[in-house]
Amino acid sequence: VTTGPLFPGGVVIIGTGLIGTSIGLVLRERGAGVWLADGDPRTARLAASLGAGELLPADVPGPAGAAALAPPPGGAADLAVLAVPPDAVASVLAAAQAAGLAACYTDVASVKAQPLAAVRGLGCDLASYVPGHPLAGRELSGPAAARADLFLGRPWALCPGPETAKSAVTSVTALVRACGAEPVTVEAGEHDRWVALVSHAPHLVASAMAARLADAPSGALTLAGQGLRDVTRIAASDTGLWAQILMANAAGVSEVLAAVAEDLRVAAVALAEAQAGGVASGGEPRKRLTALLDAGGAGVARIPGKRGAPATPYAIVQVVIPDLPGELARLFQAAGEAGINIEDIRIEHSPGLPAGVTELAVNPPAAPALAAALTARGWPAHIPESTGNPEQAGV
Amino acid sequence: VTTGPLFPGGVVIIGTGLIGTSIGLVLRERGAGVWLADGDPRTARLAASLGAGELLPADVPGPAGAAALAPPPGGAADLAVLAVPPDAVASVLAAAQAAGLAACYTDVASVKAQPLAAVRGLGCDLASYVPGHPLAGRELSGPAAARADLFLGRPWALCPGPETAKSAVTSVTALVRACGAEPVTVEAGEHDRWVALVSHAPHLVASAMAARLADAPSGALTLAGQGLRDVTRIAASDTGLWAQILMANAAGVSEVLAAVAEDLRVAAVALAEAQAGGVASGGEPRKRLTALLDAGGAGVARIPGKRGAPATPYAIVQVVIPDLPGELARLFQAAGEAGINIEDIRIEHSPGLPAGVTELAVNPPAAPALAAALTARGWPAHIPESTGNPEQAGV
Repeated sequence: VTTGPLFPGGVVIIGTGLIGTSIGLVLRERGAGVWLADGDPRTARLAASLGAGELLPADVPGPAGAAALAPPPGGAADLAVLAVPPDAVASVLAAAQAAGLAACYTDVASVKAQPLAAVRGLGCDLASYVPGHPLAGRELSGPAAARADLFLGRPWALCPGPETAKSAVTSVTALVRACGAEPVTVEAGEHDRWVALVSHAPHLVASAMAARLADAPSGALTLAGQGLRDVTRIAASDTGLWAQILMANAAGVSEVLAAVAEDLRVAAVALAEAQAGGVASGGEPRKRLTALLDAGGAGVARIPGKRGAPATPYAIVQVVIPDLPGELARLFQAAGEAGINIEDIRIEHSPGLPAGVTELAVNPPAAPALAAALTARGWPAHIPESTGNPEQAGV
Repeated sequence: VTTGPLFPGGVVIIGTGLIGTSIGLVLRERGAGVWLADGDPRTARLAASLGAGELLPADVPGPAGAAALAPPPGGAADLAVLAVPPDAVASVLAAAQAAGLAACYTDVASVKAQPLAAVRGLGCDLASYVPGHPLAGRELSGPAAARADLFLGRPWALCPGPETAKSAVTSVTALVRACGAEPVTVEAGEHDRWVALVSHAPHLVASAMAARLADAPSGALTLAGQGLRDVTRIAASDTGLWAQILMANAAGVSEVLAAVAEDLRVAAVALAEAQAGGVASGGEPRKRLTALLDAGGAGVARIPGKRGAPATPYAIVQVVIPDLPGELARLFQAAGEAGINIEDIRIEHSPGLPAGVTELAVNPPAAPALAAALTARGWPAHIPESTGNPEQAGV
């Protein structure tokens, strides 16, 4: 329900890494004009070639590799997005405002209080600046990893202050909505304490667990399962950027980490006591371990599910299909011939095996007919009894 | 490539939780006869009604709730699978062997040395027993969560000793292969040290991080993203079972946890020093943080990808489809009309949004034609520049 063109004066994106390029892809898909700039002109050119926007003509390397900034040909843009690391936000904002780049500004850094303090220190205009932070990312970085759906359904923190103009908040909120994200308004310091808990400390916890694997016997790694992959996945991210993020949110992250470290130390001691004491000491150490496991379960239960995901009204039909060219197309053809619409599909890949399990979601009354049609054509299909919670269906 | 019927004498499964029932589902799909028993007859009946096998006739509650065991009607089975918690393995094996239940035996407990010691202590026959451990699971438990594909492509540790008969190893290996899993032969004590590192310690690390969320401000949880969900996911599992597993592998888990706790404590101190010292102290604490982040990255890099997953030779076409009934079927129909086989499909769900991004894998020469065919029919389709690593394509 748009009431007019999105950002008729265009948007400038400074910094064309994963986040900046993804924002450009969304805005171009929505028909907005996008101008791209990056301190590294090759990165900006790659983002432009991916369809994230046009190069800002003034994007020529200035002294010390910094891009020289000037407004787009048509004059100041409606909005400039500073998609640069936390340490660079203040200086880039100062340069952008000095050049009269846009009517208002936002950034996407993962910490907010320290960049905001630096922005104040440089005497930037605070009325036109809305600090922002989209809670989205990938293990991959750079423009080539960008995708227009990166922000879909994700929270996007906005930290306007008393000085912030209402028009700037309106404009940045329109950007967040255009990206399909959910704006969450929060004070900058509180934002930092929140992300220390839900993003920054978990990152270091994943790193500390993964670090144990660096010198592990390779046999141990043959037993690695999905649980280990999940616990350690985010530790594979850009080390330099994360060191910067953690240093910029040091107090909050330190507090959470110290508490996690102490809980783990206590658990290690409890286990060592149980080992030393045998069954005799079993009760007390087990009680301490169970308390930590219970607290963990209670914590996980508080994490909201994916936002707005409706309870699916569909029934699931599982079908085992050979990993052969064209099998999926034949499967859909068979469903079509049986007059059944397939509403969704999930394929459980079966690495190294000649077959995979595919789950087809259909309207419940159609499930038995689909299973029968597939079975008749030679695919083993069945309807699992319990298809209760699709969020938990993956291992 | 079967050379005869699988387990012509049938398989008895004692314990019809998630693992036992899943094994039953696989064996029934493969045509083997399966007999089910559980200390809780309701659980066994549920597993039987799900198609995991027939109830073992002698499965009547004995004294103290234990099932009385007797061979199936046709005589001793080829194999008995003891899918019971670690603490119960030895007593159930002793009872099963005393009843002459099967020609050979295996278990599925997550620890191996302590149950094996108990088995020796009870004077069980070691020739017919192969300790086993499938590295597979879900956050859900019980027979209703079982699935025949639970073990596909997963490692399955087997710990035969010098006393183990070759015929028993052959039989249990056939079970592992029938489940689509990969047998990994390892000595029991070494198995326990390996899983302490790749499974048990990660579980408590996830719990300790998740425990921080139990009393967190609810605003913080609105900023929770996929990273936090992944790090903490396994902490949602059965607390009682995990306390038992951890206590049974206390020494190995304690050692890993103590090291992780110390790394996190050092990181917390480094961050606190950085906070206290400002920029002046920045270099040294940042160096220590970066070292931990780098070690974490090196550890993650050692986790093998899903086994045997071949590098995909396919090109990806991304297409945005409305969340409307039948859209997927129409999409496949359009691809079929263009003469293009779709080899694989992944749908990125877009919670709360009216559209989703679907990735279609096709042979590279067909990608531009598919994108053109879809665009011509009104779906926005494009071929991303970089489709390098499909393992990392999900956020």
